[in-house]
Amino acid sequence: MLETDFLENNVNLITKININRLVIENNSLLSIKKEDFLIKEVPVALVYNGISHTVMMCTPNNLADFALGFSLAENILNHKGELYSLDIIENNNGIEIQMEISSRQFAALKEKRRTMAGRTGCGICGVEQLEQVQQNCKFFPKSHRLHSIEPIIFDHCLAQLEQHQILAKQTGASHAAAFFAPNGEMLAIREDVGRHVALDKLLGWYAKANQPLGFVFVTSRASFEMVQKCLACGIEMLCAISATTEMAYKMAQENNFTLLAFTRKGKATIYSGQERLIL
Amino acid sequence: MLETDFLENNVNLITKININRLVIENNSLLSIKKEDFLIKEVPVALVYNGISHTVMMCTPNNLADFALGFSLAENILNHKGELYSLDIIENNNGIEIQMEISSRQFAALKEKRRTMAGRTGCGICGVEQLEQVQQNCKFFPKSHRLHSIEPIIFDHCLAQLEQHQILAKQTGASHAAAFFAPNGEMLAIREDVGRHVALDKLLGWYAKANQPLGFVFVTSRASFEMVQKCLACGIEMLCAISATTEMAYKMAQENNFTLLAFTRKGKATIYSGQERLIL
Repeated sequence: MLETDFLENNVNLITKININRLVIENNSLLSIKKEDFLIKEVPVALVYNGISHTVMMCTPNNLADFALGFSLAENILNHKGELYSLDIIENNNGIEIQMEISSRQFAALKEKRRTMAGRTGCGICGVEQLEQVQQNCKFFPKSHRLHSIEPIIFDHCLAQLEQHQILAKQTGASHAAAFFAPNGEMLAIREDVGRHVALDKLLGWYAKANQPLGFVFVTSRASFEMVQKCLACGIEMLCAISATTEMAYKMAQENNFTLLAFTRKGKATIYSGQERLIL
Repeated sequence: MLETDFLENNVNLITKININRLVIENNSLLSIKKEDFLIKEVPVALVYNGISHTVMMCTPNNLADFALGFSLAENILNHKGELYSLDIIENNNGIEIQMEISSRQFAALKEKRRTMAGRTGCGICGVEQLEQVQQNCKFFPKSHRLHSIEPIIFDHCLAQLEQHQILAKQTGASHAAAFFAPNGEMLAIREDVGRHVALDKLLGWYAKANQPLGFVFVTSRASFEMVQKCLACGIEMLCAISATTEMAYKMAQENNFTLLAFTRKGKATIYSGQERLIL
């Protein structure tokens, strides 16, 4: 059964406006007034034990999942039990997610912050010097819980993805990350304007759901950070609708991770870990 | 004439590997061995006056443009003359771009860093508390150099974009940002695995080229940060092939910025600033 949080009310995530749609036909220009639907993106601050740690642009749903998933994927937490409480507070400037985490993990976070000279950039959150790029990744212990995936199910996965991308259908502006059981049944889906955030939201769900067996499917590309986030959370396999990159490919190969990209109707490219598939 | 840096050798940006391509036809599975081309993404550290400021994942071409464009778009520099020197140094962990900037701007950067409690997230580089999200944006003085754009040229822009996306053609994994003269002639194009980085690279070119008249076209979405980066650099108009978001729309409206999205063959949606177009 599809996880119920999926059915939440998405009304506040979409704004209706009136726009002009231009259409050029036979070299003549038509301007048509019509309704349009815009997706919200809101600055969301992640606050640990009172200290504001980072701000990211998010579509403001599934924020508890996002905060937990980000914390696990970035190794701020080792497991969900280290998160003691979580409050979501809206203010004029955006949304604050206030978390209380174990004093041990908070001390580790403070130490990591102390040794970083300053601020950081896009895609590799919390990294500010070259040496830090890959060392944050805590790889899962090469577990092989997942096996015997039949590629024939991918078309079924794609059909379920398309059906359940509610925000994308209305706005054309969001990515999705979804989790599938080994038989291809969708267990959860999360959407966001940002592909990293969509995956963080799904990884939060995955931790709460006690790490069920299965694999992740993303509508976006599978770049290095996407593979790293999956590895950090104990996921063994990632399918992407779009492309992958050289660094993602290498990381997948080195860690025995199953990576597929260009997964479209009737087709997929295997970049790593094909032993989990029945070929 | 298309700016010549465009013609640089892209050999080192693409890695050839052998993969298995799965094809499912009539419920039977074929596995075909073939060549595949992966785009490189490399951690790139931006170092100002000896201090490492941020690391971002980039496709390693046009890095001097990237460093200048990022510095201007993030208001670390007000104009290109404040950048005194730039060296690109490869090491085992990635690439360092070492810049010397004016002592005045370096002092401002240090002060900004001092007041930030820690690290930052994706998409809104250098922001760590909610109050900082929009205040970094130094808007251009509502200049109206650009006017009388004929929408009929957009199809010509799209055709040039498609023709010149060299990395995307081979790898399917990169975004592009391009600059067009008011008559629709392409003046420059930059590609990257990341859409923000592609735009930063183009904005660096734009500053070096002394801010020619025209507009920016991106193959990606036009989210809030994309509009903000354009505004910070004095650009008046952005066309996106994909969607925009509510926050980008509001920022464009408030700043008299021309924003078009879903710009596809024969079609475009105007979200803001239609007075720059001939309708």
